[in-house]
This record gives sequence, structure tokens and C-alpha cells, in this order.
Amino acid sequence: MIATGVIQRYRSLLPVPEGLEPVSLGEGGTPLVRLGRLERQAGLRIPLFAKVEGQNPTGSFKDRGMTVAVSLARHRGRRAVICASTGNTAASAAAYAARAGMAAFVLLPQGAVAPGKLAQALAYGATVVEIAGNFDRALQLVRAMSERFEMELVNSVNPARLEGQKTAAFEVCDQLGRAPAYLAIPVGNAGNITAYWQGFTQYRQAGRVEGVPVMLGFQAAGAAPLVRGEPVEQPETVATAIRIGRPASWEGALRARDESGGIIAAVSDAAILEAQRRLAGEEGIFCEPASAASLAGVLQLARDGYFRDASGPVVCVLTGHGLKDPDRAHAMARPDQVRRVGADEASVAAVLEGGAGVGHG
Amino acid sequence: MIATGVIQRYRSLLPVPEGLEPVSLGEGGTPLVRLGRLERQAGLRIPLFAKVEGQNPTGSFKDRGMTVAVSLARHRGRRAVICASTGNTAASAAAYAARAGMAAFVLLPQGAVAPGKLAQALAYGATVVEIAGNFDRALQLVRAMSERFEMELVNSVNPARLEGQKTAAFEVCDQLGRAPAYLAIPVGNAGNITAYWQGFTQYRQAGRVEGVPVMLGFQAAGAAPLVRGEPVEQPETVATAIRIGRPASWEGALRARDESGGIIAAVSDAAILEAQRRLAGEEGIFCEPASAASLAGVLQLARDGYFRDASGPVVCVLTGHGLKDPDRAHAMARPDQVRRVGADEASVAAVLEGGAGVGHG
Repeated sequence: MIATGVIQRYRSLLPVPEGLEPVSLGEGGTPLVRLGRLERQAGLRIPLFAKVEGQNPTGSFKDRGMTVAVSLARHRGRRAVICASTGNTAASAAAYAARAGMAAFVLLPQGAVAPGKLAQALAYGATVVEIAGNFDRALQLVRAMSERFEMELVNSVNPARLEGQKTAAFEVCDQLGRAPAYLAIPVGNAGNITAYWQGFTQYRQAGRVEGVPVMLGFQAAGAAPLVRGEPVEQPETVATAIRIGRPASWEGALRARDESGGIIAAVSDAAILEAQRRLAGEEGIFCEPASAASLAGVLQLARDGYFRDASGPVVCVLTGHGLKDPDRAHAMARPDQVRRVGADEASVAAVLEGGAGVGHG
Repeated sequence: MIATGVIQRYRSLLPVPEGLEPVSLGEGGTPLVRLGRLERQAGLRIPLFAKVEGQNPTGSFKDRGMTVAVSLARHRGRRAVICASTGNTAASAAAYAARAGMAAFVLLPQGAVAPGKLAQALAYGATVVEIAGNFDRALQLVRAMSERFEMELVNSVNPARLEGQKTAAFEVCDQLGRAPAYLAIPVGNAGNITAYWQGFTQYRQAGRVEGVPVMLGFQAAGAAPLVRGEPVEQPETVATAIRIGRPASWEGALRARDESGGIIAAVSDAAILEAQRRLAGEEGIFCEPASAASLAGVLQLARDGYFRDASGPVVCVLTGHGLKDPDRAHAMARPDQVRRVGADEASVAAVLEGGAGVGHG
């Protein structure tokens, strides 16, 4: 009953051998929060929810898959893990490796990783290798290295990762008491949309729910290979976590889209940042830019009338915490939002007098 | 069953009126994680746990109290909240005010707040007033301002805050299936130790558990008014969240100590940073410096033989997430921990060859 994690919670639906001792930090069990204000503003007549994955131990959904991948690696006697990362995978791999008593090596594209994520990998004691290349090149390199050395590759090409990540779909169903009508999700390397679809179909097959959702995947416009139908050589977007031009789970994403009757569409960086700002300012949920691609996409579809005849809830997956990329929040601030004054009552009162919605006592 | 929070979970034990609609972000329900490796290293013969409060919505324990304080304020028709803060309270107040549709004003000591926390308050849309003074002066000012304007004061002098925070004690008991033998906790403004003690004694009174723990409070040596027995005019410590010289809940902290037969002791900044490093590197839990004061204190007591005849578990409260203060992690890194290399196999392999614990395939 202590430190539940996704293996403990959903063991019978995961490919873990008997006798495996989970390496867990209490991942999963994240809140599903109703976005009532955004729902009304968008004129939606169906309930809108956020699955807040930033509340996982290292601040992103990656922990769900990492607990399974690292538990299996340790069970098989591995002593080190390796991965390529835009940051969140690195943080998660480093944390679970530390918890397991294993070494961690992470390859990052130089200068393209949010500062909080690099800080995490360092804090957990990983060796960080910054390469003069992008994520796609880093992934090629770690594939080669995991063959040369006895290291467990813990990118989402490791099937254990997606097996763990699918538990988020189970949880959404458990929290709603049904499958959602729509599941909106950011798409970068495309592992997570693949995992959710795996989870929803498995849960239906197991008789836990009756339906499956329509899958709505969203890529940043500057890094949208699945929308374009071809790899993007120089992906560019403010949403660093989905700045990926050659998604490893390309086929899985298309299968999720086609089998569910869904879509994969592009959203602009401006729309992503606007959605991030509104989630924080209107609902009190601070996510990283990439996460807000799911809401940006839903708002775009709502404007286009996509949900006109819809019934049943739509769930936006918010993949990582805003604290991963605090510089972004500083950039978001209004010019008059920070005031520096003397430590006397008159100076402070002068600022508050001008404040919005403030009456006098 | 959606978006459970502490009011929903423990309503009958909280002073909230019927008809109050909770303002919730899914706070509480944080993991209790066994620290097996640190337990062995310290030679402890009792189980050592961490209550990981950094997994709350805004990354700290403050959310437990803020949901109660802001829900009550909205219920009474308030349109704005105000607080003084070393950062965590500001982030939490700003988030819950946004969620409630209320304005938020936060007073911060200029230059003494961790960057992630300021980023959060800004993202959630709060007006941030940086004053040329310390936390204690900021608290005096917001008390005066909340009387002058119709703003709800949401510092821990607001009793609703401590009522919410006590739910962490309930959870620890629920997770262990008993009260812990010892509860170790960082002490700054002293609201949290007061709240935990309130929670443990109430839970015993309600018949939910049989005992209460011995309370172990730890202050940073440079900000240890309760240890010295007098206010500290210029508190100094790397643990910014507990850099407080005049704790608002002074009496509550002493009561918790004396009624439980506990202690309040000081730990050095060096011990705090060492405990923070070990939590991340040995157990995969990245907390902010102030949080690690609880483990630093337990390790110090263990060395002194304090737990020699102890039985029953000791729980360390880790109050906030390491992502609140990422600069600290960069400072913690070993010199050889970040390597910059070309994007070719030979360069990367050369780094990995030198890695610890790595065999050849």
C-alpha cells in the first residue's frame, strides 16, 4: 500500500515477469482536471479535461514507461541505461537509473534542451553527452552504442517504454468511468500517441471499457513530419520536447489515427504559446510549451466546428510541467506584472490600488 | 471521482461549510517512497521513507493549504488574494487564484527567490511586487494591506492554510497503515510542523490511528530562531524556502516539539546540500534544498545514535520539487559530468568507454 506506481497498479496488463521487483518513484495516478473556463470560452458543448502528466515524479509522462523499462533492465542484470533525449527522457532515465543503482548516459542535442531538464539529469547523477547534432542524430548514435556496449536502450524504441506509457490511457478511463470520446495529444517522436492507442484498445479488449476515443494528434508546424508525410531535416519549434523530424513511432501514430478515425494536424508556435498561457492564467495549470499543443489543437478544431455534433468528453494530455522550462514563463510575463518598490506601506498600497478587481475595505 | 483533491478526500475532517465548491487542482495523494539505500548507508534499523510533496500541482506542499484557503475565500465572495512569500506560497496562491478566477498579489523579498518559483507566479498571472526587504518585512506589509483592501490574506497566518496542510499527516498514516514513529520536517515559518502535529493528533482523536509520531523539526543553521530561542534579524541560508527569521507559527512549532517529546535542531547548509545530492543520486528524488533539511537532520541524529533503541518508521517530509531551483543542480554537477563531443560514433564511444560500471557487449 506504500508508493504505488503503475506496475503495482496495472501489473496484470503489463508484460512483466513474476518475481520482478518494480523500480518505482510513485509514478502515475496523475489528476484529470476539468477545464470549465476554457470549455465555456471555446463554446464547447462537451466536457473538456486535462490529464496533468507534469505531476509525475520527474515532471513528465516519461516516468510511466521508464519504471517498466528500468525494472526489466535491472531484472535482466543490466548495469547501465542509455538514451537520446530532448530532455524529458533524459531526466526520467537518470532518475530511475539512480533509483535502481544503475549508471545512466544521456545524449542531448547541444543547446536545444530546456534548462530545467538538463538540471535534472545532472542532479540524478547521469553522464550527459551533448552532441553537435539534433535529436534524430542522437537517436541513431545511442542505437549504435547500445549494441556496442552492454547498456539498456531506454528510448521509446524499447517496447517496455510504450507498455508503461499506455497506463495513462487506463487511468483516464478509470477516472472518467468510461473511455473519452476524444483524446488530444502532442506528437513528437510519436511514442506516446502509439502507447495511448495501445492502452485504449487493450482496455476495451479486457472488458474494462466499452469504447475507444477518436485520437487527435498535434505536431508543431515547424516539426510536423507526420502531417507533411515526410521527414523534416531541420525541425524548428519553441516546443523543444516535440522538436523531432524523424519520429521513431511513425507507423504507430498513423495506425492510431486511422484505426480511431482521428487526425494528426499541425499547430503554430503562436497557438501553442497562447494555449500554454491560457492554461496557466485561466485554469491554474502550468505546463511546458510542447504539452499545450494538445489544447491548441482542440481550440483550433473547435473554431473549425469539428466538435459540432460531438458528445462525450475530450481529454487533452499535458505531457510535462512548466517548471521544466521556466525561462519561457519569464518571457510570457506582461510588462507591468513585476513591480519593484520600497518596503513601506505607501509604496506597496500604490501598486495594489491600481490592481484589477480590488475594492477598498 | 474526477480530480480528487484534499477537500474531497478529507472533507469531514476539515472546517469547510456545506455547499462550498472546492477550488482544486488535484493536490495531495503524493507518494510515500521507501529510501532503502539511504537507510542502509545510515545504518538505520528502522524503515526510512520520504513523503514527496514536490509532486503537488505547483510543486510544493503549499497546495494542500491553498485549496482550502482559496475555496473559502471564493465562497465568501472575495475577488483577490494576497501573500508574502519566499516563492512556494506565491506560486501556489497564484495558481489557485487563477483556477478560482480571482486576482493574486504576491510580495517577494527582492533577489531572494528561486527563479522557478518566480516564473510560476508570473505564468499564473499574478502581480508580483518585489520589495526592498526580507520575508519577515513582506509578511508585515501584507497583513497591513489585507486590512486596508478587501483581499484574502493567504499566508499561513490564515488558519485555513494549516487546516489543509494537516491532510499530509492523514495521508502518511493512511499510506503506512499506522502513524509513523518519527516525522522529520524542515522548519521555516513553522506553519507546516504545526499543521502536521494538528493532523496527527486529530487523526488519533478521530480513532483513525492509535499513536502519534515524535516530531523532529530542522532549521538551517543560519536561519534557526527556534533553536536559538530568539528571532534572527538577517537569516542566511542556501535553502531559500526556509530563510525566515521570525516564524509566524513559533508557538505551534514548540507545542509540536514538546507535546510529542521531539526536538527542533539546526543543520548546516553543507549538510543540507549533501542530503539533497544523495536523495537525487542514490534514490532518484530531486527536491529543493530546503526540503533536504529533513533528511539532513535524520542523518545527523542517526550518527549521534538517536535512533539506537527506536522501532517503527521515520518519515522525512520533502516539501518542494528540485525543479523550483534548477540553478542549484547545475552547481551540484561534477566537473566531468557534462561532455561536449562531435556527432560521430567514435567520439561518443570514447566517452562511454570511460563510464563507470560499463561492460563490453
